[in-house]
Amino acid sequence: MEMEEVLGEVLQRIRPSEEERAFVKGLMEELRSIAREKIEELGLDVRPYFVGSLAKDTYLAGDHDVDLFLAFPLETPLEELREKGLELGKAIAERLDSYEVAYAEHPYVRARYRGVSVDLVPCYDVRGWRDVKTAVDRSILHTRWVNENLKGRNDEVRLLKRFLKGINAYGSEIYVRGFSGYLAEILVIKYGSFLRVVERADFMLRQKIIDPANWLRREPEIALRTVKRETGEDRPLIVIDPVDPRRNVSANLSWERYGVFYFKAMEFAERPSVEFFFPKGKPQGSYLDELRKRGTALVTLLIDAPDIVDDILLPQLERSARGFERALEREGFRVLGWDVGRKDKAFIMLELDREKRERVRIKPGPEFFTERGRNFYRKNEKVWVVGKRLYSEKRVKEGVVEVIGELLEKNQVALGRGIRDAIMSGDVLLNYVPKELEEEAYLFMSREKWNLKA
Amino acid sequence: MEMEEVLGEVLQRIRPSEEERAFVKGLMEELRSIAREKIEELGLDVRPYFVGSLAKDTYLAGDHDVDLFLAFPLETPLEELREKGLELGKAIAERLDSYEVAYAEHPYVRARYRGVSVDLVPCYDVRGWRDVKTAVDRSILHTRWVNENLKGRNDEVRLLKRFLKGINAYGSEIYVRGFSGYLAEILVIKYGSFLRVVERADFMLRQKIIDPANWLRREPEIALRTVKRETGEDRPLIVIDPVDPRRNVSANLSWERYGVFYFKAMEFAERPSVEFFFPKGKPQGSYLDELRKRGTALVTLLIDAPDIVDDILLPQLERSARGFERALEREGFRVLGWDVGRKDKAFIMLELDREKRERVRIKPGPEFFTERGRNFYRKNEKVWVVGKRLYSEKRVKEGVVEVIGELLEKNQVALGRGIRDAIMSGDVLLNYVPKELEEEAYLFMSREKWNLKA
Repeated sequence: MEMEEVLGEVLQRIRPSEEERAFVKGLMEELRSIAREKIEELGLDVRPYFVGSLAKDTYLAGDHDVDLFLAFPLETPLEELREKGLELGKAIAERLDSYEVAYAEHPYVRARYRGVSVDLVPCYDVRGWRDVKTAVDRSILHTRWVNENLKGRNDEVRLLKRFLKGINAYGSEIYVRGFSGYLAEILVIKYGSFLRVVERADFMLRQKIIDPANWLRREPEIALRTVKRETGEDRPLIVIDPVDPRRNVSANLSWERYGVFYFKAMEFAERPSVEFFFPKGKPQGSYLDELRKRGTALVTLLIDAPDIVDDILLPQLERSARGFERALEREGFRVLGWDVGRKDKAFIMLELDREKRERVRIKPGPEFFTERGRNFYRKNEKVWVVGKRLYSEKRVKEGVVEVIGELLEKNQVALGRGIRDAIMSGDVLLNYVPKELEEEAYLFMSREKWNLKA
Repeated sequence: MEMEEVLGEVLQRIRPSEEERAFVKGLMEELRSIAREKIEELGLDVRPYFVGSLAKDTYLAGDHDVDLFLAFPLETPLEELREKGLELGKAIAERLDSYEVAYAEHPYVRARYRGVSVDLVPCYDVRGWRDVKTAVDRSILHTRWVNENLKGRNDEVRLLKRFLKGINAYGSEIYVRGFSGYLAEILVIKYGSFLRVVERADFMLRQKIIDPANWLRREPEIALRTVKRETGEDRPLIVIDPVDPRRNVSANLSWERYGVFYFKAMEFAERPSVEFFFPKGKPQGSYLDELRKRGTALVTLLIDAPDIVDDILLPQLERSARGFERALEREGFRVLGWDVGRKDKAFIMLELDREKRERVRIKPGPEFFTERGRNFYRKNEKVWVVGKRLYSEKRVKEGVVEVIGELLEKNQVALGRGIRDAIMSGDVLLNYVPKELEEEAYLFMSREKWNLKA
């Protein structure tokens, strides 16, 4: 298929219809007037702002969740903003279909209305980056900047977002670490179109720094500090936020996700196809077959994770997986790979070279003609010399489950702090996972989870 | 048992009886007159010398092999010495019970007479080290130096030799790499007695250089060159030969053998016992039991070794064993230890952590955003990114015997040059050795072969 044809077909599927647009418009107007009414009723000095892809008209067809931000004056004390903001959110939500209170940096209301999710988020009514006090404050500025600069290229953003979704690189959440919607918008504004962005996958990485608002000239000291800090963190890209020179828009973008984008962009440019945007389902198979084919062992730690958000839990799980990797390698197992996540329970999966090691370990000792050498000689039952060194051996447990038990008991695994206790009291499964992890185990063992060529 | 008692009991067993002395004396006189007779008959200008422990009266009871050296004038061309020397040796041997021709640097005659082995070795009649032309020439000088300096401490030498035999550190042959008889004599001369030598096991190693004939003062340049060279070779001891400043008497002494001496000397000084001199038999057991207990795998290469002397064969086998160790570690096996030797055939034994590895190997690739990265991506079927790097995996053979076959086929094992072909066409046995290697396999697997605390 030709490129134009592909993009045309994709656009037909992702561009909202006139009907959807009308519905969205009506919804927003209705929500705005309810908000204004409640603000007045409560006697608050608050402005309602729509932010996010709806406000920027960059949402994908069928994907029109509402973000309504309730902006308090800058002088409002944080405590008051939290309290009044939640009160106002609840008052608005009472008029909608249903709601619950959710928690991020501060509490907000998540409501449902006419089949749509509506987030009612208190924030400060900032005029510029120097006013920013909480993490959500920038959204108003983002929305304004995109609307001022997008200049009708909304469908290009839609294409890029759908492409990123299709290749599983969309979203800056911790379990994706991909491209945020705002980053996609900036890239389209910077390079002009979806295709130009895709063609620049290699170029961008080499340029490294993207500065659409010219902060490096306007605020060189602050912008350079950002560049330095983010270079130190070894990010694939440094995109200086057009509305805040202190911030790298792509701070959460991982090398892995950029790698996916890199190759998929290359392939798409060479052989365009709708499948990049709407891929076929995940590959399916049995992890037990994989185990047999690979001749390896699968150890799964099932963890009753404490009630913490993914943003905190996942890095802790990753840290712990790395801790197990190091500890097991020291014990004579080879770790071919690991995978972490949360389904019902949190889990760490480790693929090992075998389930049983040899029962004997050679212990290299010191040089024989030293005080330490003479002690080593005295302490060990069997001792021999190779070169200048003493050697001995000891019996060890062979099964990996026993070895893990021993390692945990002796506190010899570096674990993520917040989940240490949960891991200590978790279950260790060998070559078996519960039903709800079967798919994950297959995707991990077969590496289809990460395979760029799936 | 007290030290004195122990030494007394040992001396009773190793000091030749008056009867044996008389027999040895008669034998030497008889041999000398036969030699003189034959020298005259053949019209040669040759002097017969007795060398070795018989000539120095440092032989152990029952161990009285004869070394009769036939010394030709220095002017004799080497070719003539070889020819006439062999002729003379044969002529003498004709009068003895039986003989065969043996080969070292040059051919010599090995005869039997009255139950004793008699070596008839042609050499040059050297007066000092500057005359030395062949490896055996120094023996006459050694014998003379020991006889001039031993001053009645012959039994002390006997004790030291028997001690070294008992702990398996006697002999400078390649498969022992221990203390030669001459080295034992020098040490007794230097330190005064068997016990003083034993007490100095640690001291000697620290002093490193022993120079009984004061060569470092008499011939500083040459002696220093020797010290430098041997330091470079990292020898445990440098004993400058009293009769030749160019030579380290203990050049063949390995760190391993010195280690054995080091600990056994320490133990003997603490708790003297006759057992050090006359140890009980080797520990016995089954290598198959060891295999089961240790949970490891034994790979044995059986090699039809070419007809070369141990001095050359053994280092080649060791080099090859190290080659297999490195190659197998690269392939994912762990080598816990190895052992080489020659029984009927030459052999290399390797103890491995397992007989089957996993069937899949993770292949780390280059950074993804490079030319090499893009090639890696194209070439491999399954590719994923971790950090900045690409990874892939490949299927591999799992059985160690197949892996060794493949490694040899692809020429990926660094083998000793002289035995490359023999190894290539040898047999690879897994967890099984032929009858004649069963004891060796047990001693190796159990580490009793080297265990200092056996």
